[in-house]
Amino acid sequence: MADPPEGTTSEADEEIMGATYRALQEYGYADLTVRRIADEYGKSTAAVHYHYDTKDDLLAAFLDYLLARFVDAIHEVETTDPERRLDLLLDKLLVDPEGHRDLLVAMLEMRSQAPYKERFQERFDQNDEYVRYVLRTVVDDGIDRGVFADVDSDHVSRALMTIVDGARTRAAVQPEGADPGALATARRTADEYVDAVLLRDD
Amino acid sequence: MADPPEGTTSEADEEIMGATYRALQEYGYADLTVRRIADEYGKSTAAVHYHYDTKDDLLAAFLDYLLARFVDAIHEVETTDPERRLDLLLDKLLVDPEGHRDLLVAMLEMRSQAPYKERFQERFDQNDEYVRYVLRTVVDDGIDRGVFADVDSDHVSRALMTIVDGARTRAAVQPEGADPGALATARRTADEYVDAVLLRDD
Repeated sequence: MADPPEGTTSEADEEIMGATYRALQEYGYADLTVRRIADEYGKSTAAVHYHYDTKDDLLAAFLDYLLARFVDAIHEVETTDPERRLDLLLDKLLVDPEGHRDLLVAMLEMRSQAPYKERFQERFDQNDEYVRYVLRTVVDDGIDRGVFADVDSDHVSRALMTIVDGARTRAAVQPEGADPGALATARRTADEYVDAVLLRDD
Repeated sequence: MADPPEGTTSEADEEIMGATYRALQEYGYADLTVRRIADEYGKSTAAVHYHYDTKDDLLAAFLDYLLARFVDAIHEVETTDPERRLDLLLDKLLVDPEGHRDLLVAMLEMRSQAPYKERFQERFDQNDEYVRYVLRTVVDDGIDRGVFADVDSDHVSRALMTIVDGARTRAAVQPEGADPGALATARRTADEYVDAVLLRDD
């Protein structure tokens, strides 16, 4: 990656990430080209390659960008009440993606390539570890405060991520306008799971 | 598809499906070619094309073949006790795939292409509908017999399939030898869900 003049990187990167997002939504991963990203960016392919040598470099950076956006979204969850906090985190994971089916399709394509592309694998692993950490932390806090049952918080975080990943896969491949939608089903399932496992009286 | 001599179709089809299975496990979906399937089959590409015009014809037939095998596996579950039957069905879905990570990877790749390939989409939809039907039926039977709580069986079948699909996605992309494995986590989660939602006392 070339070294652009100080002060312009961040803005150009942000614009290219936005262009990548739109191009992925429009064409999906398999038909994505640097040409199409450049068209969305409104500049030449050379202008894109100035920042990213290859399409895979760009897509690895895009996965980092999505992870950073998700971290920001998590920081918006300001409540420290464990039950309420877990509820809002599950909304971020299972309600906010509603209406972004094209992105879910593109992400599923990229994730299916992770076993073949180490840089994709690293990003998806990092994302998964981060989200599980956030979930485990709120569960542990709830246990410490006596509002959640004394559960295996590592398992609970993995169980909830299983529901989240099931929702992502199912929402990507379900027919348009499916009722009930995959995300709504998963949100309800996560609630039932939390009620049963964390909020049980014992 | 050409019309082969009576009596040889079934055996050749079966052999080609086996060859496709092995080729998918070895190369994945993206690098699968009719040449590689023919090599596994031990015959020429022409011999494969005699039965299937295109690679996508062959792969659509392969998805039908997997569905038929799954239907056979379901028929092996002979018990009619609802709780035991549901338990065995969840084993078919979440324990039997253990050790077949390469196939899970290839299936995830094909599923991620379903939004672009109608014939893939049809097969995955059909599979999903069938499995949900089987799950709903055992839940309804358990409700009728008074051993399960009076739940929304359609939702429960979708909730369990969300856990199953989450497991499939996570098992495909998890590092080799991950502990706990994605399938084992999902099997435990499904048990917790069933205990909480179907076997609750009320």
